[in-house]
Amino acid sequence: MHVQIIGATGMIGRKLTARLLADGALGGREITALSLLDVVAPDVPAGARPRIAAEATDLSAPGAAARAVAARADVIFHLAAIVSGEAEADFDKGYRINLDATRALFEAIRQEGLRTPYTPRVVFTSSIAVFGAPFPEAIGDEFFTTPLTSYGTQKAIGELLLADYSRRGFFDGIGIRLPTICIRPGAPNKAASGFFSNILREPLAGKEAVLPVGEDVRHWHASPRAAVGFLVHAGSMDLAPLGTRRNLSMPGLSATVGEQIEALRRVAGEAAVRRIRREPDPTIAKIVAGWPRNFDARRATSLGFKAEASFDAIIRAHIDDELGGRVG
Amino acid sequence: MHVQIIGATGMIGRKLTARLLADGALGGREITALSLLDVVAPDVPAGARPRIAAEATDLSAPGAAARAVAARADVIFHLAAIVSGEAEADFDKGYRINLDATRALFEAIRQEGLRTPYTPRVVFTSSIAVFGAPFPEAIGDEFFTTPLTSYGTQKAIGELLLADYSRRGFFDGIGIRLPTICIRPGAPNKAASGFFSNILREPLAGKEAVLPVGEDVRHWHASPRAAVGFLVHAGSMDLAPLGTRRNLSMPGLSATVGEQIEALRRVAGEAAVRRIRREPDPTIAKIVAGWPRNFDARRATSLGFKAEASFDAIIRAHIDDELGGRVG
Repeated sequence: MHVQIIGATGMIGRKLTARLLADGALGGREITALSLLDVVAPDVPAGARPRIAAEATDLSAPGAAARAVAARADVIFHLAAIVSGEAEADFDKGYRINLDATRALFEAIRQEGLRTPYTPRVVFTSSIAVFGAPFPEAIGDEFFTTPLTSYGTQKAIGELLLADYSRRGFFDGIGIRLPTICIRPGAPNKAASGFFSNILREPLAGKEAVLPVGEDVRHWHASPRAAVGFLVHAGSMDLAPLGTRRNLSMPGLSATVGEQIEALRRVAGEAAVRRIRREPDPTIAKIVAGWPRNFDARRATSLGFKAEASFDAIIRAHIDDELGGRVG
Repeated sequence: MHVQIIGATGMIGRKLTARLLADGALGGREITALSLLDVVAPDVPAGARPRIAAEATDLSAPGAAARAVAARADVIFHLAAIVSGEAEADFDKGYRINLDATRALFEAIRQEGLRTPYTPRVVFTSSIAVFGAPFPEAIGDEFFTTPLTSYGTQKAIGELLLADYSRRGFFDGIGIRLPTICIRPGAPNKAASGFFSNILREPLAGKEAVLPVGEDVRHWHASPRAAVGFLVHAGSMDLAPLGTRRNLSMPGLSATVGEQIEALRRVAGEAAVRRIRREPDPTIAKIVAGWPRNFDARRATSLGFKAEASFDAIIRAHIDDELGGRVG
């Protein structure tokens, strides 16, 4: 089978690529071709078995989506997006990449199918940013989408388009709303959500991290490993049970910052916890107050999506996957 | 003040025009100019007091939205849309008119404001078609939008765009989800929902009407007069209490076909009821089964939107407004 990943150079895209190459198959079918697309040409992993094509493309450019779709992949993972902060800072760019390019992709698939029948599986990564405060104690599967960012708006629109194109039979789509990914590998970044990962990743590597909010702040997490698991499941599961409701909040772990820190203490000891420096930042605290804290993701859970059940497991996944099993 | 109606030749557009001309004001401010736009040039009502401009324009055409917005109206009513059946039959046309033209309008307002500050009130007519079965007993204000038509998808996307453009301060928008309008004046049409109006309007005019579903079918109604009332209120109320949640299900009346018929009997007598001919149509029955039956529209109600409390009132409004007070 032919698998295409759009947005392959991002953190999740690279991990999904590695997972698919390691598995060699998706849903029990051998992967014979893998197309990696992003605005910069993705690296081709060395020694990879299936035929791999890597290409730099901007889906929002005229004709780009049609060229990408001409490969007629069996499964298309659409991960490409401008992140929340950038989409808020640059209104036009956010709409161009997150909305127009997504619609161009969907429409290119439809047009390809109008020429010769073609109904690929399309897996679209949405986000819990489609929801906006105030929230119920746990956000259920039928709660409405009232995004408080342009990014969340663009993702919510992508979900609606995906559902309509699927309902009309133009492709077989599923949208998955990812929790905040924790522990995010790499260097600390300036995203308002960065500290959720920083306060674990940096101490585990023997470095200091800044905590800008109180320990009672609650948030919704899943590991990079769980996120890749969601994608693989979404790419291979039977979608008939979804009916016309094609967008799902993924399971995750609702935890306070204090619970994160306690897990760090259990897994890596007191020395690691002492590397967290408290520097309250009212601006970040205010932004975070508008974010979802907890979900009741029973629909996704009943459909076989799985996330970590404890922050200890999230930390151990990071130590295994990023630190070669060792704590610094 | 300057009021602009986009989609002015439709049934609601004409009634809104008549109401604004009769009132001479909106929200206590005199209407000094009225711009009527539609794909065909709207009629200019005779003897009208304010300056009226009527223009044929297709908002989806390049530059058309910018030209419309250059008038810098204080309040813009955006009613223009391809109806549900046509948007389902012609996928491209539905997206072009219901999505692209709406976005073009919103974007033209933003661009106008980037040149010289401009934040008009924008009233957008959405629809209960943003919801898709299965439903709770009554659809609450926080129920999710899972449209089962492309029309409903396009309206749900319009709502999201309206909320984001309002949140960013590009205009002051409100989206109102209209119930099914009953009694719809004019000739019977082939819309699947047509019978809800036909079985009252035709007998009231001394004519026969066909009822294709059972008397237990429940649906959500408001009169044309109530719909115009929603628009006038939306165009003049303070929107601050809405916060970022700019789209509201309007109040209405949940009634069965049997209750409609009983009201007809009370208002117009047994002779009128005898003009309803039962001709079950399984296709129509199946379509209608996927439609909302009841809402708990407490948010809109608390914000001052008002609908009829009985079908007797809906029928009397029709007799007053369309039949000069006489039953045929």
